[in-house]
Amino acid sequence: MTSANELRRSRVMSRYHSVRSTTSELTRGLTAEDMTTQTCADVSPTKWHLGHTTWFFETFVLRPFGDERVHDPTFPFLFNSYYEAMGARQPRAQRGALCRPPLEEVWTYRRSIDERVSSLIESLPESQWKEVEQRIVIGLHHEMQHQELLLMDIKHVLGTHPFPPQDTRVLEASNPVEACGYTRFSGGLHPFGHRGDAFAFDNEGPSHLQNLVPFELADRPVSAEEYLRFVEDDGYAQSELWLSDGWAWVQDQGIKAPLYWRKLDGRWHVFHLEGERPLLPTEPVMHVSFYEADAYARWSGARLPTEYEWEHAASQTPVEGVFLESGRRSPAPVGSGALSALFGDLWELTQSAYAPYPGFRALPGALGEYNGKFMSNQVVLRGGSFATPQSHIRATYRNFFYPHQRWAFQGFRLAKDV
Amino acid sequence: MTSANELRRSRVMSRYHSVRSTTSELTRGLTAEDMTTQTCADVSPTKWHLGHTTWFFETFVLRPFGDERVHDPTFPFLFNSYYEAMGARQPRAQRGALCRPPLEEVWTYRRSIDERVSSLIESLPESQWKEVEQRIVIGLHHEMQHQELLLMDIKHVLGTHPFPPQDTRVLEASNPVEACGYTRFSGGLHPFGHRGDAFAFDNEGPSHLQNLVPFELADRPVSAEEYLRFVEDDGYAQSELWLSDGWAWVQDQGIKAPLYWRKLDGRWHVFHLEGERPLLPTEPVMHVSFYEADAYARWSGARLPTEYEWEHAASQTPVEGVFLESGRRSPAPVGSGALSALFGDLWELTQSAYAPYPGFRALPGALGEYNGKFMSNQVVLRGGSFATPQSHIRATYRNFFYPHQRWAFQGFRLAKDV
Amino acid sequence: MTSANELRRSRVMSRYHSVRSTTSELTRGLTAEDMTTQTCADVSPTKWHLGHTTWFFETFVLRPFGDERVHDPTFPFLFNSYYEAMGARQPRAQRGALCRPPLEEVWTYRRSIDERVSSLIESLPESQWKEVEQRIVIGLHHEMQHQELLLMDIKHVLGTHPFPPQDTRVLEASNPVEACGYTRFSGGLHPFGHRGDAFAFDNEGPSHLQNLVPFELADRPVSAEEYLRFVEDDGYAQSELWLSDGWAWVQDQGIKAPLYWRKLDGRWHVFHLEGERPLLPTEPVMHVSFYEADAYARWSGARLPTEYEWEHAASQTPVEGVFLESGRRSPAPVGSGALSALFGDLWELTQSAYAPYPGFRALPGALGEYNGKFMSNQVVLRGGSFATPQSHIRATYRNFFYPHQRWAFQGFRLAKDV
Amino acid sequence: MTSANELRRSRVMSRYHSVRSTTSELTRGLTAEDMTTQTCADVSPTKWHLGHTTWFFETFVLRPFGDERVHDPTFPFLFNSYYEAMGARQPRAQRGALCRPPLEEVWTYRRSIDERVSSLIESLPESQWKEVEQRIVIGLHHEMQHQELLLMDIKHVLGTHPFPPQDTRVLEASNPVEACGYTRFSGGLHPFGHRGDAFAFDNEGPSHLQNLVPFELADRPVSAEEYLRFVEDDGYAQSELWLSDGWAWVQDQGIKAPLYWRKLDGRWHVFHLEGERPLLPTEPVMHVSFYEADAYARWSGARLPTEYEWEHAASQTPVEGVFLESGRRSPAPVGSGALSALFGDLWELTQSAYAPYPGFRALPGALGEYNGKFMSNQVVLRGGSFATPQSHIRATYRNFFYPHQRWAFQGFRLAKDV
Repeated sequence: MTSANELRRSRVMSRYHSVRSTTSELTRGLTAEDMTTQTCADVSPTKWHLGHTTWFFETFVLRPFGDERVHDPTFPFLFNSYYEAMGARQPRAQRGALCRPPLEEVWTYRRSIDERVSSLIESLPESQWKEVEQRIVIGLHHEMQHQELLLMDIKHVLGTHPFPPQDTRVLEASNPVEACGYTRFSGGLHPFGHRGDAFAFDNEGPSHLQNLVPFELADRPVSAEEYLRFVEDDGYAQSELWLSDGWAWVQDQGIKAPLYWRKLDGRWHVFHLEGERPLLPTEPVMHVSFYEADAYARWSGARLPTEYEWEHAASQTPVEGVFLESGRRSPAPVGSGALSALFGDLWELTQSAYAPYPGFRALPGALGEYNGKFMSNQVVLRGGSFATPQSHIRATYRNFFYPHQRWAFQGFRLAKDV
Repeated sequence: MTSANELRRSRVMSRYHSVRSTTSELTRGLTAEDMTTQTCADVSPTKWHLGHTTWFFETFVLRPFGDERVHDPTFPFLFNSYYEAMGARQPRAQRGALCRPPLEEVWTYRRSIDERVSSLIESLPESQWKEVEQRIVIGLHHEMQHQELLLMDIKHVLGTHPFPPQDTRVLEASNPVEACGYTRFSGGLHPFGHRGDAFAFDNEGPSHLQNLVPFELADRPVSAEEYLRFVEDDGYAQSELWLSDGWAWVQDQGIKAPLYWRKLDGRWHVFHLEGERPLLPTEPVMHVSFYEADAYARWSGARLPTEYEWEHAASQTPVEGVFLESGRRSPAPVGSGALSALFGDLWELTQSAYAPYPGFRALPGALGEYNGKFMSNQVVLRGGSFATPQSHIRATYRNFFYPHQRWAFQGFRLAKDV
Repeated sequence: MTSANELRRSRVMSRYHSVRSTTSELTRGLTAEDMTTQTCADVSPTKWHLGHTTWFFETFVLRPFGDERVHDPTFPFLFNSYYEAMGARQPRAQRGALCRPPLEEVWTYRRSIDERVSSLIESLPESQWKEVEQRIVIGLHHEMQHQELLLMDIKHVLGTHPFPPQDTRVLEASNPVEACGYTRFSGGLHPFGHRGDAFAFDNEGPSHLQNLVPFELADRPVSAEEYLRFVEDDGYAQSELWLSDGWAWVQDQGIKAPLYWRKLDGRWHVFHLEGERPLLPTEPVMHVSFYEADAYARWSGARLPTEYEWEHAASQTPVEGVFLESGRRSPAPVGSGALSALFGDLWELTQSAYAPYPGFRALPGALGEYNGKFMSNQVVLRGGSFATPQSHIRATYRNFFYPHQRWAFQGFRLAKDV
Repeated sequence: MTSANELRRSRVMSRYHSVRSTTSELTRGLTAEDMTTQTCADVSPTKWHLGHTTWFFETFVLRPFGDERVHDPTFPFLFNSYYEAMGARQPRAQRGALCRPPLEEVWTYRRSIDERVSSLIESLPESQWKEVEQRIVIGLHHEMQHQELLLMDIKHVLGTHPFPPQDTRVLEASNPVEACGYTRFSGGLHPFGHRGDAFAFDNEGPSHLQNLVPFELADRPVSAEEYLRFVEDDGYAQSELWLSDGWAWVQDQGIKAPLYWRKLDGRWHVFHLEGERPLLPTEPVMHVSFYEADAYARWSGARLPTEYEWEHAASQTPVEGVFLESGRRSPAPVGSGALSALFGDLWELTQSAYAPYPGFRALPGALGEYNGKFMSNQVVLRGGSFATPQSHIRATYRNFFYPHQRWAFQGFRLAKDV
């Protein structure tokens, strides 16, 4: 093995253990009971995330490359998520029924697979390395996605509890938020989507040209204080502000405020991963669905940006912001200045339906189920959040959720026609 | 009044009565019982269509322009469809409960409103004419849409009956269908959306430029024979062919073939408005959902076109085909030659989510609810069908349905990347 | 044939035509649209009742006794109700989808079967007469049940319409209702259930002894005025008054008053078959479920009677009251005197679960599905209503509905422990 | 305090700690994850049972009698079951969302309340003793009920897991089961229900006379081998064997065998609390619903007994059998001899609807919600099971479940008319 290759393997090894241990650290402070609980079909238990990300390496890295042992014959059923090609699996809505295996066995599973992946990295014939390396990289990006999912899900578990944890820290008062400025873009034909050799998901390509009409993009996300005005103006009760499906959703579900907001003694409180606390006017509004963001935008005389508009602005902006590595577990207050917080802090809802780019091809085999099969009925979000690892995000990254979902760390900024 | 203005009014008068009487003619052969029946939430009774289209003229043409009488105080509740701004209404899923008013009263309602509209056309002050004319034109396009809906809905009523009417005509054998050719387009920056003064719905504009990547578009829709091969290849049981939401839909609903197909004595039969008959290999496949069309496309190594691709091709093609005026109540066999049947015959599913064009503005007031509020979760269909009046369709026309719906007169043609 | 036998056949013939023509008369004033409409799964269209009762004679009287023709090959599927032994059938909840056959064909069906039954009565060999006579008698009782069901169902169709017919008659003021007295019974061992040769359903036997603890039975049903006090005392909001299942039902369904009550301009109105009119204090309360009757009883410090208590009282009372033959389409005001209105006016809810009597045997064959298979989860009602033919009712007659149902012509009287 | 009174208190103290520690022992071998998991709305987590039974003593014994502290202000919401009078509570179906409080805090809660109850027993003024004693006794019977519920529920948690624990013990072959004999009873007027001063629930009284028709009662419950014949005779597919509601249930749910049966490699296996193992022909069939028992009885030409018939037989039989104290966690094989296993082993389904006895009065206050409000739609089961404490059961004891439920330790024996 050349030293260049050795170096490469050593970097992958180091990256592998770094990402894997970050996942473990995210569970600090959680009991086995917390980590087994599922509060709705969208949410998976922490324990399941630990098992599933490990199954991913066992299934897609170890087993096709010479290390064929199955750690436990029940785990492929228990920890497969949605890969039809990999066989039957525990229904998603029933992951909370998995009292067994006990958490300790899942930790053992992680350690064992970590050792076997380490051995594979060290001993694999050079001829197979490139493909394995690609798969490990996919597995690590997959794991980073699940780091964020794990935090989203445990937030739901703790935050929908009738008595959620309280944030008793004394928070400094922030400066008042200035009125939001807009940055103008002149439009025209521009390239979009991922180019180059660095890692990207299949859904970010192929790169292609798209024409933009001139537009303005807000310099920052909508703040909680601004959104509160919409709530207090009875925005949730004015049908003309809502898309028809959104109006039906609001009526059916009795939605009157963002997820994790509740009024205690006449004052709005918000649950964050740090605990419940009084709403801060300067925090960006979060945990609103596409329907709510769209209604707010209509109420305020603006609209949501398209994913192309967002990417066009972001492609000229460094990937900086509040990410997972910061240790923060909630977004920073909204800032001032042009085009702040495009990356990190909160995913930003766009008005774009999640659809294939021209010429899109899914990966072959089971991994082709990763992104492509979800390209209907969902909307695109961009930019990552405080729970996204910084190395995981880029301007072309496309996240996607259903228009009614709101448990992700998501907010939005406005756009305007010129 | 100048004679130019007189002529204009006379043309609107003539057009009004022509469209209105076409609606009446579509009910020929139906009993009051047929016209009162609702078979699912999507379907409205024929009687309701007759009332609703009349209410539209009463509400948006007569009442705001001096003729304020309400024909019957219960009708605004009974015949409003989805206009939140116009007040409470009979829930859509319960339109089949409207045994009253009896059909005869609805015919009386139509005649009465027709007389009042005629009077208004004749006597309206010139100062108000332009706005009223616009509204009458919208009302007539609205009525033409309901002509097609009426046929879609009565087809469901008759076609899901356990003993549907039979088509006992002897049909001539068609020539075998040739393999489908493709027409190549070189892409580039092109204008899309409606331009000019002729009538168009708000969702067709504003006109704007969009870049197309080179593509090929099939010369004709997929035939029943071709689709049958997919059915017989167990296409409905291969998860890898389906979008995730489509796969869930197929499993939940037990879908195994297009709507209105059933196997009798080992042979597939299809229900048409003319009655049930053995499947003809040369008829275009119809009543498939977006999910089914998408799965078929994947199975065949192709994809659905975007609405931009479709419009680009159609904008170079005359608006010719089988329309409502032909008297046909099912599409013609698929043809040969380049880009046949883009207009008429069947609506064509695209892969495009129904979304606002850049700079879209809904009409002001209640009529703004016409199109804009449905811009989520739906897909665009293009080109009209045998049940669409010819004067109602154009290359920029955007129809939309949910991806699981299939009771519209819809089929699809394939596209390919180059 | 002896003249005694001739006489017997002639009586059956006469009875047959009398009952059948009563059914027809009940449809007077209804349009084909009224008669095709279904408003919920429990309700069947009038047209279906006409077909089903006819199918009953065709299936159980004509076809097994030499007249094997099937009037129409689709009718056994369309008009079978719930006889599993007789094959597949139109799902109950979709009877409203039967726009076809048109009403006229159902009338033709009735006339044709009536002629064929008449022929059979005249020409049947004496050896088969007894069995056929029994079946005709069952068929006539079946038809009488459907006469009442037809009225219940059409009342629902008209009464749940957003604009129900109005009763514009000027009604005389009734005398105020006196406080309700109670009649005391000393209990002890008594016989219950049907004895003798007269017609009764299988579920009324066998006759058997049952011991009664001393009790008091109210002399009349609860009046609307009395029930209104419960409503105004917030009876529907006091959980301690309700059975657990009843409380869940009230909460889920948002129940706040009996079916067909609604407040117009601050005044309670009630829909009757004669139309909607202001609530009369002296009418017996009707269209309350078992849960509501039970809650009212608890609120008033009493309870519902058991079916044994009711039968014990009724067996000493002549079968007199307001029946179908009276032409009334709503119950008479509550009366005074001891044990009034046990028969006719309204079915009376009991606290007894519908269960087999000791030694119960269902009829053999498909007719065994008539009563026995419903002996779970339902409660017994006794005494008939204004919509029950007088010859159809007796002290041992057991009607049954689910505890949440309330579209039957049902009220209740109270009982007390001594 | 007299020594008689001291003795009495000392006995209550001893009984209290004995019952409470039995509950704790039942959790041996379970992890915190097992004890937090809920698998369906009927099932509660073990941890919740531990909290709820403790809340019962805190709420009904401590707080009304001078010890007013609330251990934790969130626990009344979290651990109230269904007592409307005691305020809002965690919805039953969401008890599995209670990751918090952690198990350790619930154990602390138990210890704390146990100490406070001990103090109360020791220090309570004599004047209040009698009422407190009654409430402690109710609390202990309540706890004994929850001991059985805890086992039922944890069995569901473990037994519906996709990979349930296995029973790897080698079981001795049992002797073949002899044909089941019947014991004849001559009927007549007999007393039923609880008499005397010993503890009984309110629903067991008042004692009253009831007349029985002569009947025969099977000497033992139906065995698994016998039930298997019904399964293999396609009993689940023969509509004529089923009550109408049962048939709908079987069809909707796809029921084909008792709960916890599954076929592995062509052989039926059954899950017991000891683990999954091959079906033993001699074990009594268990975990069948009322509908299944009723269908089996019809198939075999018999019927289920009424609760009166069962009690009449049991009142002449000593309370002996396999109870919780035995340490067995499944019923013994069916025996021979007359009227075996009436008590213990398995609850026995009857055909009797759960209804109030003549003159029934619920307890006053919130405890009145204990039994009375469930008296609709349920059926009575008698005799206790292997999971019932022996001191908790008697001939008059009435347990009740919905006719479709089957997760209780329930089987059935047949009866016949004479």
